[in-house]
Amino acid sequence: MEMTFRWYGHDDPVTLENIRQIPGMRGIVSAIYDIPVGEVWPRERIRQLKEDIESKGLKLSVIESVPVHEDIKLGKPSRDQLIANYAETIRNLGAEGVNVVCYNFMPVFDWTRTDLAFELPDGSNALIFDEAVAAKMDPVSGELSLPGWDASYTKEEMKNIIDEYGQIDKETLWENLRYFIERIIPVAEAADVKMAIHPDDPPYDIFGLPRIITDQAAVERFLDLYDSPANGLTLCVGSYASDPANDAVAILRYALGRERVNFMHARNIKLTGQGKSFQESAHPTEYGSIDMYEVIKALVDHNWEGPIRPDHGRMIWGETGRPGYGLYDRALGATYLYGLHEAITKENK
Amino acid sequence: MEMTFRWYGHDDPVTLENIRQIPGMRGIVSAIYDIPVGEVWPRERIRQLKEDIESKGLKLSVIESVPVHEDIKLGKPSRDQLIANYAETIRNLGAEGVNVVCYNFMPVFDWTRTDLAFELPDGSNALIFDEAVAAKMDPVSGELSLPGWDASYTKEEMKNIIDEYGQIDKETLWENLRYFIERIIPVAEAADVKMAIHPDDPPYDIFGLPRIITDQAAVERFLDLYDSPANGLTLCVGSYASDPANDAVAILRYALGRERVNFMHARNIKLTGQGKSFQESAHPTEYGSIDMYEVIKALVDHNWEGPIRPDHGRMIWGETGRPGYGLYDRALGATYLYGLHEAITKENK
Repeated sequence: MEMTFRWYGHDDPVTLENIRQIPGMRGIVSAIYDIPVGEVWPRERIRQLKEDIESKGLKLSVIESVPVHEDIKLGKPSRDQLIANYAETIRNLGAEGVNVVCYNFMPVFDWTRTDLAFELPDGSNALIFDEAVAAKMDPVSGELSLPGWDASYTKEEMKNIIDEYGQIDKETLWENLRYFIERIIPVAEAADVKMAIHPDDPPYDIFGLPRIITDQAAVERFLDLYDSPANGLTLCVGSYASDPANDAVAILRYALGRERVNFMHARNIKLTGQGKSFQESAHPTEYGSIDMYEVIKALVDHNWEGPIRPDHGRMIWGETGRPGYGLYDRALGATYLYGLHEAITKENK
Repeated sequence: MEMTFRWYGHDDPVTLENIRQIPGMRGIVSAIYDIPVGEVWPRERIRQLKEDIESKGLKLSVIESVPVHEDIKLGKPSRDQLIANYAETIRNLGAEGVNVVCYNFMPVFDWTRTDLAFELPDGSNALIFDEAVAAKMDPVSGELSLPGWDASYTKEEMKNIIDEYGQIDKETLWENLRYFIERIIPVAEAADVKMAIHPDDPPYDIFGLPRIITDQAAVERFLDLYDSPANGLTLCVGSYASDPANDAVAILRYALGRERVNFMHARNIKLTGQGKSFQESAHPTEYGSIDMYEVIKALVDHNWEGPIRPDHGRMIWGETGRPGYGLYDRALGATYLYGLHEAITKENK
């Protein structure tokens, strides 16, 4: 596996120099953040991003994400032009030698939590999701904003788009995903780009919005939409495990068996036992509901060589910054995962 | 194994709160720093140290070190009173429930390096030992000072004590060590304290001073001085590996076989190929000359349950502080070692 780290560009308080000094770190997961959703990413901007990263001794391993415009998810007439633009971005990425693209098909909201700084017993802060709190939240109010969410909507626009999703059901959302996939995957194949859909996080309906990439049945259905190595997954174990009904390691092993894991997110969460509520935790197995040894073991068993990144970290040592995306706890997660991988690999030689 | 972290007390820029937030961290390695070498550590001071640490959710796992007075190493007439004081300290530690004591028998200087901030390719800084530079250094000049060195000598005193060591050879030093051990180990046994001698670092003569705890033959000889579980080792793989003639993992396995590893220091070093010169490195195997997987594997094979700590770290992310004893890289080392241990343990179930 190739250890990578998410970097939010030059205004990220975590610098490339910081990331380079983490033992075992090889690659960067990043994106171009200032191009509006739906527009083409020009080759020169991609090249600049790549060169910035390479100048610091790292490589640009994965784009996370090229966002999918809401009109594509909603199946609106404008989607054909938007898909053409998306395809052009994929071609440009491939031409610049960037070969893995993460994206998701979540309506409106990206990953969702109810508290961004819940205090754990050791004084660190973690992101948590409390089902009861979420049930009372008004997504239109703007009371919550998370890294990755599109902050460009006004309240009125937000209300309108949520109303639009009220008109479509999950089957329609699946159809709209199929429409997108059937047009993008051939382009990705030709461009030598592997697409990697991120599961819905958490993996169930939220704020009354339909969510479809949620469990093993969904993974099977998704991979059957278009059978190609370019049509793969971002296997985010933390997301899948957030539904107590899921066995995240089983989903991982299934996807590895089909050779469709194009990118790994390794994050731990602790189910609290209160319905679907969970707290994000430090990466090691003892702190969460996911056996992280079993995750890395599955990768080694399949000789998996793709990019993996530590996912959200707690805030520790007084760090402030993007919720979930500080330097310290993610770096500790990276060396922990690296240690698991070194040991399992050598044990199996 | 029990993961621990060295802490230099309340004036350490690394706080107990910081250490507590490192995943997998259980214990603290510390000492009472303001009691002159040779004097008794009172029970109330030990109890205070223990309570300070326990109040932060950690335990006081190891004392590193109770320093051995130079008069004991030199075999001077004053040694009997100094050994009586040392024995009283050991009894006091045992009475307060502190059960592992690290010490060393290095003349005058503790661990020695020639540059405390050598810049590695990734911009981090590491401690290095350059044999050619060391050969030209004047230990009396005071040009170098390292954490753990006794800074209380004047230049004149330093010159005198080095001259005194000029009068004794290695066999005399061994005899003086035997004299100390024969009097301290019975006390330690009665007090339920495990003594753990640290190897000389680096493990060969330096500045013309004799060094004796240097290799596997020395370990064998040392353990034969007094055959007791209380007469054990701080198995510092980084120190042993600093002599290219040593196989640090073989020394570790030998000592584990005799059940005499009372404390582990897990640090990596990179032999540069220039004689005995080396650079300290990040902990993972790929950066150094020690296969850290083999180190942890040896511990698991022997069901070893003792305290281990990451050892010196590089300075990364702009941290300043005690050379080798910053927070960041040592913490990354701890989670790496923890990952190795989790995986090897589970692989061997």
